[in-house]
Amino acid sequence: MTQQKDPGQQPSRRLLLGGALGAAGALAVGGAGFATGRATASEPGDPIASQVPFYGKHQAGISTAAQDRLAFAAFDVTATDRVALMHMLGMWAAAASRMTQGLEIGPVETHPQAPPADTGEAMGLHAANLTITVGFGPSLFDNRFGLAGKRPAALEPLPALPGGVLRRELSNGDIGVQACSDDPQVAFHAIRNFARLARGTAVMRWSQLGFGKTASTSQAQATPRNLMGFKDGTRNIKNDDTADLDEYVWVGNETDQPWMRDGSYLVTRRIRMLIENWDTDYLADQENVFGRFKDSGAPLTGKHEFDTPDFAAKDKDGKPVIDTRAHIRLAAHENNNGIRILRRGYSYTDGIDPVTGYLDAGLFFIAFQKNAHEQFAVLQRRLGKHDNLNEYIQHTSSALFACPPGLSAPGDWWGKELFGA
Amino acid sequence: MTQQKDPGQQPSRRLLLGGALGAAGALAVGGAGFATGRATASEPGDPIASQVPFYGKHQAGISTAAQDRLAFAAFDVTATDRVALMHMLGMWAAAASRMTQGLEIGPVETHPQAPPADTGEAMGLHAANLTITVGFGPSLFDNRFGLAGKRPAALEPLPALPGGVLRRELSNGDIGVQACSDDPQVAFHAIRNFARLARGTAVMRWSQLGFGKTASTSQAQATPRNLMGFKDGTRNIKNDDTADLDEYVWVGNETDQPWMRDGSYLVTRRIRMLIENWDTDYLADQENVFGRFKDSGAPLTGKHEFDTPDFAAKDKDGKPVIDTRAHIRLAAHENNNGIRILRRGYSYTDGIDPVTGYLDAGLFFIAFQKNAHEQFAVLQRRLGKHDNLNEYIQHTSSALFACPPGLSAPGDWWGKELFGA
Repeated sequence: MTQQKDPGQQPSRRLLLGGALGAAGALAVGGAGFATGRATASEPGDPIASQVPFYGKHQAGISTAAQDRLAFAAFDVTATDRVALMHMLGMWAAAASRMTQGLEIGPVETHPQAPPADTGEAMGLHAANLTITVGFGPSLFDNRFGLAGKRPAALEPLPALPGGVLRRELSNGDIGVQACSDDPQVAFHAIRNFARLARGTAVMRWSQLGFGKTASTSQAQATPRNLMGFKDGTRNIKNDDTADLDEYVWVGNETDQPWMRDGSYLVTRRIRMLIENWDTDYLADQENVFGRFKDSGAPLTGKHEFDTPDFAAKDKDGKPVIDTRAHIRLAAHENNNGIRILRRGYSYTDGIDPVTGYLDAGLFFIAFQKNAHEQFAVLQRRLGKHDNLNEYIQHTSSALFACPPGLSAPGDWWGKELFGA
Repeated sequence: MTQQKDPGQQPSRRLLLGGALGAAGALAVGGAGFATGRATASEPGDPIASQVPFYGKHQAGISTAAQDRLAFAAFDVTATDRVALMHMLGMWAAAASRMTQGLEIGPVETHPQAPPADTGEAMGLHAANLTITVGFGPSLFDNRFGLAGKRPAALEPLPALPGGVLRRELSNGDIGVQACSDDPQVAFHAIRNFARLARGTAVMRWSQLGFGKTASTSQAQATPRNLMGFKDGTRNIKNDDTADLDEYVWVGNETDQPWMRDGSYLVTRRIRMLIENWDTDYLADQENVFGRFKDSGAPLTGKHEFDTPDFAAKDKDGKPVIDTRAHIRLAAHENNNGIRILRRGYSYTDGIDPVTGYLDAGLFFIAFQKNAHEQFAVLQRRLGKHDNLNEYIQHTSSALFACPPGLSAPGDWWGKELFGA
């Protein structure tokens, strides 16, 4: 052993695993005694050393400036016991409160004959702006856990939408967990330790790694490029647009389920890009598909990326400069009764499609909104039917989760109000 | 179009695609005229802004301090035409010389009716220490390209080794390409553009993303942890150990094929970790499996990570302190007639195993050496039979590539000497 310690002097693994819901709060504030801490110094401007506060009115990871890397997982609850589920959610909250500070969820050494509380691969790493965002899928609100009467109307499963050839095994789930960080090992570590804490209660249904953010959510961030080489999140809602966030993202008093107030609805779509086909398309057509110049990212009616697109502009032959089926035209809030969503997607690649030999790569689309039926679904119905992009993309998975508000303080946990605990 | 340019004033796409081998050199030095450049300022100490020289005696990406992210691909040549293969390798070299400087492989805009020369998703990103390392697999040296007499004895395919349940579709390949960078989008971009330049000549056989380096190759780097939470590359060869590199890594005059002098042999093994099982193992056993303390990374006979293991030490009951089957004992050069390898592996996760529901995650092991039959294979034969770790790992893929020496200057390309060009 590296250090001799009196086992009585430190929180035991039992605290994490045995103490029902009360343990969550105790663990969350009990870090001081742990033998192994990760570096926590926060150097301003260094994303790797930075932390995002875990507690607050809203969950972190929604309006938080998008971090570089994503690990996402959907879980199905296997336990039939409501208390087991509540206990797991409490343990998750306690673990998340520590991991988002760059700490292990518990000590490496409790007793030599016990497994370490934490899987350990993030020891020595900073939090790197880790956020962990949890949401509940429609399927959780069946008869298993007494939640049937608590499902918000907005959590009706999404209808079939054009543009999708959805793979069931990569879609939906009882619970969704989004871990974002500027260090991929930290994001993976969070998901893995959630899966471990879930053992006996829930199993992972699907997971997705994302390696490059595709939409900026902060004025301070340059707009990243997607795997088609285009800047595409230019007109996204930014994290300091408080009015926009209140209007389009945060659930307000209109909700029929008070436990969702200050929460948000999360939609994920795994959008496979047929990049080999795309790469053979000529430049002018690529630019017409998006309605933007590839190089600068400016709309075809402008010179600079942030120029407002002029959808009425015509060329000398009287044709619209921005094609009638261009992505930015169809997605624009001006052309959708003002509808906006907060995008937070990541590029992914999952190796090679064994059928075609092409790269299985694209965009893991993530959007947050007040009501996905009135926002994402409306936009996708239009885009899926008419968008020039459809020749080059295919939605292969879909999920909807109701993300409750932020946790208030140690002892709070995801769903505490939902479960009436 | 963002800028009006006279097409005559810039290198055309034809230069990249049409000009046979001479184009490679022309392109490599012809960057000045391109309309679109990526940021290239190199700020000391900022890995994202840093560049690794592409030309040199040895290929970069071997003794280069390990970058954070990996994109690896193996290609099979589909063309039967030797010149087509040579042409592709020339285009790859020209493209790599640009990408490693943080530049596109060619302009976005050649003509509006032509596809952009570069796929574009790395526009605006720095090189982030990108290295691109190419090697040739045993299968390339059959009768297709007149190379049968050029295969080095050391490029005999690896024999079956214990510990492996190899998946054929994830193993071997005619050509292997390792792209490493501190920015995953830059590494992916390199592999994707190689695949695109290969079109009609070679197809991707398998690919692998790695998200966290698992072995440091530089004294300046802290030893990272693998997904078992252990520091495992502690005793790796470091990039300033010139004597060790000459003795164990770089091919010397002993080779039977002069084109391999100053090159190195690359072995990849996809090592699936059964992490769910591992996570239930108790701490003392985990530490016995590795022969190290989990927390500090010190050998069980020491206090600090870099303490030399004392393989003779016995505990009070006369049992070896470092178990007879501990990983560090079996892998140690002291116990293998001095055999050493240069490790350069990365953690990976590829989602969920559809059969078991467990995470498909582990280590994408990469090692460079003078002769894999006399180094890696000898070590693995021992480890695969006796290592305590075998209960928790499974080798699921294997590949061997002969990496020729570094390219000397613009106009040189991988295999130029091999092909006698």
